[in-house]
Amino acid sequence: MARFSVDYSLNARDPADAKDKAFEICVEQSVEFPFDLVTDPFIRSEVVGQTESLRKLKSGRYIAHISFHDDTAGKQFTQLLNVIFGNTSIKPGIRVESIRPSAAILDLYKGPRFGAQGIRKITVVNRGPILASALKPLGLGARELASLAYRLALGGIDLIKDDHGLADQRFAPFRERAARCAEAVARANRQTGRTCAYVPNVTADSADVIARARFAKANGAAGVMISAMLTGFDAMRQVANDPRVDLPVIFHPALAGSFTASAQSGIAPGALYGRLARLAGADASIFPNYGGRFSFSKEDCSSIAENCACRMGAVKKAFPMPGGGIGFQNVREIASLYGEDVILLIGGGLFRQGPDLAKSIRELRRLAACFS
Amino acid sequence: MARFSVDYSLNARDPADAKDKAFEICVEQSVEFPFDLVTDPFIRSEVVGQTESLRKLKSGRYIAHISFHDDTAGKQFTQLLNVIFGNTSIKPGIRVESIRPSAAILDLYKGPRFGAQGIRKITVVNRGPILASALKPLGLGARELASLAYRLALGGIDLIKDDHGLADQRFAPFRERAARCAEAVARANRQTGRTCAYVPNVTADSADVIARARFAKANGAAGVMISAMLTGFDAMRQVANDPRVDLPVIFHPALAGSFTASAQSGIAPGALYGRLARLAGADASIFPNYGGRFSFSKEDCSSIAENCACRMGAVKKAFPMPGGGIGFQNVREIASLYGEDVILLIGGGLFRQGPDLAKSIRELRRLAACFS
Repeated sequence: MARFSVDYSLNARDPADAKDKAFEICVEQSVEFPFDLVTDPFIRSEVVGQTESLRKLKSGRYIAHISFHDDTAGKQFTQLLNVIFGNTSIKPGIRVESIRPSAAILDLYKGPRFGAQGIRKITVVNRGPILASALKPLGLGARELASLAYRLALGGIDLIKDDHGLADQRFAPFRERAARCAEAVARANRQTGRTCAYVPNVTADSADVIARARFAKANGAAGVMISAMLTGFDAMRQVANDPRVDLPVIFHPALAGSFTASAQSGIAPGALYGRLARLAGADASIFPNYGGRFSFSKEDCSSIAENCACRMGAVKKAFPMPGGGIGFQNVREIASLYGEDVILLIGGGLFRQGPDLAKSIRELRRLAACFS
Repeated sequence: MARFSVDYSLNARDPADAKDKAFEICVEQSVEFPFDLVTDPFIRSEVVGQTESLRKLKSGRYIAHISFHDDTAGKQFTQLLNVIFGNTSIKPGIRVESIRPSAAILDLYKGPRFGAQGIRKITVVNRGPILASALKPLGLGARELASLAYRLALGGIDLIKDDHGLADQRFAPFRERAARCAEAVARANRQTGRTCAYVPNVTADSADVIARARFAKANGAAGVMISAMLTGFDAMRQVANDPRVDLPVIFHPALAGSFTASAQSGIAPGALYGRLARLAGADASIFPNYGGRFSFSKEDCSSIAENCACRMGAVKKAFPMPGGGIGFQNVREIASLYGEDVILLIGGGLFRQGPDLAKSIRELRRLAACFS
């Protein structure tokens, strides 16, 4: 019978203490019941998590590799997340370092429908970094945002996404915005002969997520963006699997920051933005780049890129999509870190270069092409 | 025009630095665009967040009270959460300390349908702590769980909830479990003349949440439990507002631990388990009690209880529902901390007392009655 597993790092005084703490995770994440009161032999031996291995990471810190019976996750993504980190998220000093789905779980969730290669086909950027920007600021009307989208597409950007703060506000209601922006980008594409992709933000309440994603598809969007911590991860999975949406999905990290605020607790950036996001269907994963206004280190970012591309059964690779305070002055360094398989997301930094967006985008492409 | 507001604590060297950092939050949580590039006067003056006040909390730490235009939240709970903490969650050293919804937002979300008083009516526990226990361990069949529910109800417990790890696993599929347990509790109630409430866990993927909640209602459940960080908060709000569900909702903290792992970042326990949970419709809020196996302090727990009961427009009070490692030896102390308006959740600690559940529950009630 199949089991999936999770690597947890934890604080412990010595190997015996680490073993005890790992066993506490085994119990907490499965039966959540005093083990000595569990009498059923099947529950004791199969349902309760099992420490498969334990190793010292550094003084006072250990890695426990713990397996769980596939059936504990009950074929629901919410419950899989619950087994991975539900109650243990509330315990101090324990971090999810990696997630290793079983073959059955990989078969159930499948991951990205398009993957990085699919996004290359849609944008027709066969090699090199894909250049992306964002429609903002919040408060502009749908016509103004569409006009900005038109100028960006005409200027040669590869992908345009809504700012994650554009929801369904009266300033630019979702349907009007998505339809106008998709139309504006299509118009620019007809002029340039290029294939710039427009990706609206479909983050919304409950059933509105899938409704907006289907509207986006029907109105010419080339992908959709979802802040999965706001909607719940399963809403992203549902959109990624919906045959009527049939578009790449970009994961946005809004509200996810608390999971990566500490190296001692939460979920490691590679596990969250790479493995979990892919498992839930993300074709690209937005994360805060190092050196900008957020708190990620260069190592965090490298780990995310690795986990977006690492082997995980037949699950497709996703694009890492660093953003958040990337300026022209550090594009060269950033591009050389990620190599060519990346979507570079530049919002404010691009607009700061001045009103000639075409010129700025040409310069951006020149700077980003240094990876080879 | 109305604005809602949020109190953030933040690290700063001095008042000038604190002012700069507060302004960064104002921009990040609204336009997410370099302020000097924002030209529209309405966006500059209204859409961008505003620091209403700033005060020193202690050396190096300040509280910024920041207001946002109601329209930025766009009448969607996901977007309200996004404005409160979306991208700022990824910045180091900033914590949401309190949330102050505007009258318009309170009118939109309304909060708990039943509230603490409604739960008292349903359980017919007119005063004193309500005693709750949980069905576990995961791995038992639906008949076994129903048998346990029957014994707990017969023994005099006031409220029985599913363990949050009971989802829809093959061991005890949701519909069979919910129907059997509700029936077993009703049978016990007919024998005792009491009104024990059964609350199944309806945490599930996307549309399944509301479907399970409606099934629960149709099959005699007295409430439903939702791990809102797994489903997304809006799924809980939707269930709380659904006329076909029409049951009290209990919020469970699975996966929410990373938000309260640090006093310097995330969301303060009172804001998360009290104000946010209530705003999203929770009639009771489960949280890890101090002194158990989780990481909350006594002050955290007091703050949650205060924020479950504090004035927030016409939003009803919710019951604080501490659980997680409560043993008989500390029931007296715990009950005296919370006073009578509390649901005491005791799972493993109750079963540890031995097989005579009725006797243990009598003893528990005696210990818990010390609040006066």
